[in-house]
Amino acid sequence: MNILLLPEFDNNQLSINITDRSQISHVQQVLGLKEGDSVKVGSLNGKLGTAVIEEVSHTQLKLGSLNLDAMPPSKLDLTLVLALPRPKVLRRLIMDMTAIGVAEIILVNSYRTDKSYWQSPMLNRIDEFITEGLQQGMDTIAPNIQLKKRFKPFVEDELSLWAKDRSLVVAHPYSPLSFNKYIEQSGLPQVLCIGAEGGWIDYEVGLLQDNGCQPVNIGRRILRTEAAVNALCGRYL
Amino acid sequence: MNILLLPEFDNNQLSINITDRSQISHVQQVLGLKEGDSVKVGSLNGKLGTAVIEEVSHTQLKLGSLNLDAMPPSKLDLTLVLALPRPKVLRRLIMDMTAIGVAEIILVNSYRTDKSYWQSPMLNRIDEFITEGLQQGMDTIAPNIQLKKRFKPFVEDELSLWAKDRSLVVAHPYSPLSFNKYIEQSGLPQVLCIGAEGGWIDYEVGLLQDNGCQPVNIGRRILRTEAAVNALCGRYL
Repeated sequence: MNILLLPEFDNNQLSINITDRSQISHVQQVLGLKEGDSVKVGSLNGKLGTAVIEEVSHTQLKLGSLNLDAMPPSKLDLTLVLALPRPKVLRRLIMDMTAIGVAEIILVNSYRTDKSYWQSPMLNRIDEFITEGLQQGMDTIAPNIQLKKRFKPFVEDELSLWAKDRSLVVAHPYSPLSFNKYIEQSGLPQVLCIGAEGGWIDYEVGLLQDNGCQPVNIGRRILRTEAAVNALCGRYL
Repeated sequence: MNILLLPEFDNNQLSINITDRSQISHVQQVLGLKEGDSVKVGSLNGKLGTAVIEEVSHTQLKLGSLNLDAMPPSKLDLTLVLALPRPKVLRRLIMDMTAIGVAEIILVNSYRTDKSYWQSPMLNRIDEFITEGLQQGMDTIAPNIQLKKRFKPFVEDELSLWAKDRSLVVAHPYSPLSFNKYIEQSGLPQVLCIGAEGGWIDYEVGLLQDNGCQPVNIGRRILRTEAAVNALCGRYL
């Protein structure tokens, strides 16, 4: 947590009460701050700046002298289409994609996505993971997140239309073209499709390719989904 | 686990008995394989290939028809100097750095490394995390890992010598030079110094800089250590 993300508020407001337990305990226990100390803050969909701790207890944090004047960092020009992964890794993935600045995240079904993943209670906690990611990456604007439970209609009816004016790539270890070579020739793609553990099956790569995605490899090494997402997004920094 | 890493053996050997419980349960429960099925394997410090499952029970896995003829992937030309992180994140960090192919990993002390981290039992499990990383990244050769409990002597007496014939960079959010700009001008650095949570303090950045490291930023966003490591290593793929 590198900023405390505060609710949306107008710029004339000078103080605010926080009751979020994780924010309060972070300020007290991780940062070790007390009354009179300054803390970095951001307002949801607004600016970044500082505030001064006026009162702090286990249940409440009163911030004053709010001074928010910096714009949040710009987003990456990137839509990330990700096969819905195991619920266990969803939190860190959403958090990392948000922190690194992915503009749009689309979680799609895939052959290797177990049906039970779509019933996971973790899917109801996505907003919470986004807030964690914004507080990590010092951003105030949530990425746009969409869930697509049907792969084929999503690819044929939606993704296919993007190919008219955006560059699309699917990560696939068996593609002869490397991601480096692709970037050299065409620049950074605006859409990246990344499989979850086990990757895409041939049918899925074929369908993505038929609808405008260029398959690229990132070498012979197979990375964990999280590691692959960060390694690929790192190219956009 | 994308390969089973087998102990070192000579190339004339045709069968092997595995008793490692995590490998056996992976073969049975994650891959769902049974007798007669083929499985991807690698031999420690040797080649990659396939084997056939001859017998499998909860306690033993007998592999036959060993056929190992592919060289492991080459390593990245990269030494990663990392401030020793919280024990909790050490496993994934070692695993990811190994899987992505970092040639040499140096865990150093830093101001923000809590003293207790050096006493963690996780440090005794590094070999285990490396094996996990090799099995993930389909590699057979462990990175060289060193632990340096004293920052200043390490930087002044060892790292300073590298600067004679290698390019060194320290990741630091307040550097005016971006990593992209550095790469454009000088190519990929051979040594990357990355702080743990909270980053390096000014004294550490100063000492690294005095001993030949160029500070570079990767933008305004602050990433988790794992995410930063993967995002930076992704440039080398």
